[in-house]
Amino acid sequence: MINASLIEKTRSGSAIRAMFEEGKRLASLYGTEYVYDFSLGNPSVPAPDSVKTALADIVENTEPLALHGYMSNAGYESTRKAVADDLNRRFGTAFSAGNVIMTVGAAGGLNVILRTLLNPGDEVIVFAPFFLEYGNYVENYGGVLKIVDTGEDFLPDSEALYNAISGRTKAVIINNPNNPTGAVYDEACIKRLAEALDRRGRELGESIYLISDEPYRELCYDGAEVPFLTKYYRNTIVSYSWSKSLSLPGERIGYLLIPSECDEASLIYDAAVIANRILGFVNAPALQQRLVERCLGEETDLEYYDYNRKALYKGLTDIGFECVYPRGAFYLWMKSPEKDDRAFCERAKKYNILLVPGSGFKRSGYVRLAYCVDHAMIMRSLDAFKKLFTEYDNYGKRN
Amino acid sequence: MINASLIEKTRSGSAIRAMFEEGKRLASLYGTEYVYDFSLGNPSVPAPDSVKTALADIVENTEPLALHGYMSNAGYESTRKAVADDLNRRFGTAFSAGNVIMTVGAAGGLNVILRTLLNPGDEVIVFAPFFLEYGNYVENYGGVLKIVDTGEDFLPDSEALYNAISGRTKAVIINNPNNPTGAVYDEACIKRLAEALDRRGRELGESIYLISDEPYRELCYDGAEVPFLTKYYRNTIVSYSWSKSLSLPGERIGYLLIPSECDEASLIYDAAVIANRILGFVNAPALQQRLVERCLGEETDLEYYDYNRKALYKGLTDIGFECVYPRGAFYLWMKSPEKDDRAFCERAKKYNILLVPGSGFKRSGYVRLAYCVDHAMIMRSLDAFKKLFTEYDNYGKRN
Repeated sequence: MINASLIEKTRSGSAIRAMFEEGKRLASLYGTEYVYDFSLGNPSVPAPDSVKTALADIVENTEPLALHGYMSNAGYESTRKAVADDLNRRFGTAFSAGNVIMTVGAAGGLNVILRTLLNPGDEVIVFAPFFLEYGNYVENYGGVLKIVDTGEDFLPDSEALYNAISGRTKAVIINNPNNPTGAVYDEACIKRLAEALDRRGRELGESIYLISDEPYRELCYDGAEVPFLTKYYRNTIVSYSWSKSLSLPGERIGYLLIPSECDEASLIYDAAVIANRILGFVNAPALQQRLVERCLGEETDLEYYDYNRKALYKGLTDIGFECVYPRGAFYLWMKSPEKDDRAFCERAKKYNILLVPGSGFKRSGYVRLAYCVDHAMIMRSLDAFKKLFTEYDNYGKRN
Repeated sequence: MINASLIEKTRSGSAIRAMFEEGKRLASLYGTEYVYDFSLGNPSVPAPDSVKTALADIVENTEPLALHGYMSNAGYESTRKAVADDLNRRFGTAFSAGNVIMTVGAAGGLNVILRTLLNPGDEVIVFAPFFLEYGNYVENYGGVLKIVDTGEDFLPDSEALYNAISGRTKAVIINNPNNPTGAVYDEACIKRLAEALDRRGRELGESIYLISDEPYRELCYDGAEVPFLTKYYRNTIVSYSWSKSLSLPGERIGYLLIPSECDEASLIYDAAVIANRILGFVNAPALQQRLVERCLGEETDLEYYDYNRKALYKGLTDIGFECVYPRGAFYLWMKSPEKDDRAFCERAKKYNILLVPGSGFKRSGYVRLAYCVDHAMIMRSLDAFKKLFTEYDNYGKRN
């Protein structure tokens, strides 16, 4: 008998994965043009030209032994210093290379910090709806996931958080901007969260770490800004990835930031470097470390995502769908016109529309649309959405 | 309190890591020229020229979205097929892309397969001396490491293996060619191991998986050959890395091979792909997958390592040290002239010689020398070894 929980996972599969396979099936039946696939969060904007230039230059002008060899498990000193300097410039912070660990993407970083922080039975709080992998990451190290619901604004509620914290709570994970809702937690929200964490931590005499998962930090619209959390709550640890900001998801490059003001900061840093090694990452890919060091000022084509965001939101709300106005990331969170969001997704498939049910993020009654897609596909899809919506013309009367 | 076992690891540190720091300290005191650092297994032969050419071509001629985007968590279909074809060509096997999962190096692959196979409390057998990370990898998933000693030839003994297997034994890890001994397990040895595993597995009615960790497969000398283990034992799973064969250790690229004839092969494959995702690797670095696909026929400069191997073995045995004649990898395993190998390593430091104590590999009385170093450094070091040896001139008489 292999690992019992993995056997279970092979049976249940991933909702997003199932969509991916369905998309391939529909495309082979009807042609790619006539399939409207909103299921995958894979950037549709290519990496900036500067990425190609920098990569070519690094390959051409770096001596191979230095280019591909081992470095410290924490990553190149120069890359870590450049990351710290860039954060300090942008957020007025005072980090150094010794606060940064280069990681195999944010997924790698989250695994490293959870392996570092958790003893078996420790609790980790997340706010629903949430990126379902958090549950898997916590389970990898014997942790217990505690889910706190959000209200109609999909912002975390500080009192609900306060009440959910127990003597076994080791960490809280937030994702800002948010996958799947597209919400951006503003400063007022962050201040309330920080206050609740601080108050409850003091009452319990425990360090509760806020893990801020920020792969979408730079994807904000209408001038929305993501507060830099280490400035609001001492025990914040940031997990970042360049997957979205430089469109490098397949390259697996990110970092963990462990500020010196965290309780046990230096122990956590040393332990996390060891965790990075013993979990088998060893170090973040060498070539990609050199690349991001060179491309820290670069930005993705945010206007393209914004163009998609506006077109999709307007198109769907004009038809009559209720959508949460997205302020960040590249996801639109839409109310299912029937209570059962899985049934709605099944019905959408009849029109070759692929959506991810909100139940897959532990919030039923909604669906997620990823608009990191070809703009023309969005425009072509609106007719199909119109037909789908007519199925619900009398729905309110029937139910 | 962060993870208890990691706190312990931050205290004990890594012997090899400590050597690395000591090397830097000595170099700053005496100059790099006068420090003889044999502690690190970092390839000293650069990647073949074809690696640079292939990388430049891939960066120049691949569309960025395709180049850096997500692919299946198992890796590119074309890369996995090329790996399978290459193995089939070399070993007369019949693997397909569906037997291969691209991984973040062999360390990543070992973590993935242990996460997949182990339920908490399951036992994993290793043969001492062994690469100490195996213990950490097994512990990550609640497994229990069982250590079986080898004899004076440092080859695994099949009867000792047979006796160590219990109803909780899920896997046996072997490393061939071997770190730290430089031994190559020949066909007769492999056949005895396979027979013991097969017999005991049938008696217990359990599937016992043989995990073959093979980052040194191509590093063999004097015509020694490493048998391809899947041909000898049905339940073999291979973990491979290009870290040594293409000198790409910092890039983190390798694979897991799960043959179809393994018990539960298809369940293990599916579960391992999920493990690759949820452990935070997600997929092996995209660019490196394309690179190794193009460089499958390429070889490292084995002659350089061989030149070092012969010079170091001859130099040390001429002085009077007892060494195990190395047939593979790039390590020399030398008997400590005093029982306490840590004391010997301390004494060696007086002569600016850095060695790793065998106790670090769970075999006291020996030390490991990595000869993936500059040849001139080996030659310069022999005088220092001569002086070190004279300290033991009367050692036999004293003890």
